Amino acid sequence: MIAHGLLCPSNLSGVTMAETIFSKIIRGEIPCHRVYEDKWVLAFLDVAPLAPGHTLLIPKQAVASVDQLSDESGAALGRVLPRLCRAVMQVSGCKDYNILQNNGAMAHQAVFHVHFHIIPKPNQETGLGVGWKPGTLDGGAQMAQDMRDVLVNAASGED
Amino acid sequence: MIAHGLLCPSNLSGVTMAETIFSKIIRGEIPCHRVYEDKWVLAFLDVAPLAPGHTLLIPKQAVASVDQLSDESGAALGRVLPRLCRAVMQVSGCKDYNILQNNGAMAHQAVFHVHFHIIPKPNQETGLGVGWKPGTLDGGAQMAQDMRDVLVNAASGED
Repeated sequence: MIAHGLLCPSNLSGVTMAETIFSKIIRGEIPCHRVYEDKWVLAFLDVAPLAPGHTLLIPKQAVASVDQLSDESGAALGRVLPRLCRAVMQVSGCKDYNILQNNGAMAHQAVFHVHFHIIPKPNQETGLGVGWKPGTLDGGAQMAQDMRDVLVNAASGED
Repeated sequence: MIAHGLLCPSNLSGVTMAETIFSKIIRGEIPCHRVYEDKWVLAFLDVAPLAPGHTLLIPKQAVASVDQLSDESGAALGRVLPRLCRAVMQVSGCKDYNILQNNGAMAHQAVFHVHFHIIPKPNQETGLGVGWKPGTLDGGAQMAQDMRDVLVNAASGED
């Protein structure tokens, strides 16, 4: 089912629209190797896979970054993720895999419609490369407090 | 609220248990800089951040990998992800960020309890490093068909 209504600007007041190649794929104007589809989400094979089985999971809500998603879109993505990972594992034969979701050009985002990569890791050389330079947590108590304040204020603003 | 019941083996038949440092954090036996908590999930600051604001989102369901999560846990994680990203953005001051979730030692998983990293990307040098060597999609039609078959068979098995 193609939920055209979700692509209508009137449904997304205050949210940045992102008409991209993924909107065209959702509408069926560009073909894809479809893996899963429901009212809220679509999953299909990445055309430039990092490893065999590399799959993309996208919301039908056409926004660029996760922070712009509705709770409902977020929940729908999260709900199908486990079963989709099981299918990727079974067909790719890989037990190990990464899920990556990039927001913003500096964070490696290339298509400005939210997409979760599910990337099998068959061996060290194939799949996602992860660069990890950890620091130390300074001022964590204040930072966590600030985040809690943001969340509480946002929640009270919805009442 | 701490949902001890979710950590009970009897609730997770056939699913690998993962008693890790994160279970202890959920139960409050090890402290953390808590950002958000509800019945299903907990979010807190990573103690070895890749950038200021690096936050972990975990399910209270104690399983090692996303494929082992219940639909409900997956949905609960997805539902809070957008608002959590907004809080990380506001407090870190970063517009760009990555969400990374690793499954298996080869895929860079260190704690064997599902966790989503939300990692601000303040500049090229800080945050997550992404190694990306794309290939070509060969046999995509068959692979997508195989995944659809896995998903359909799994769904019919639930009836």
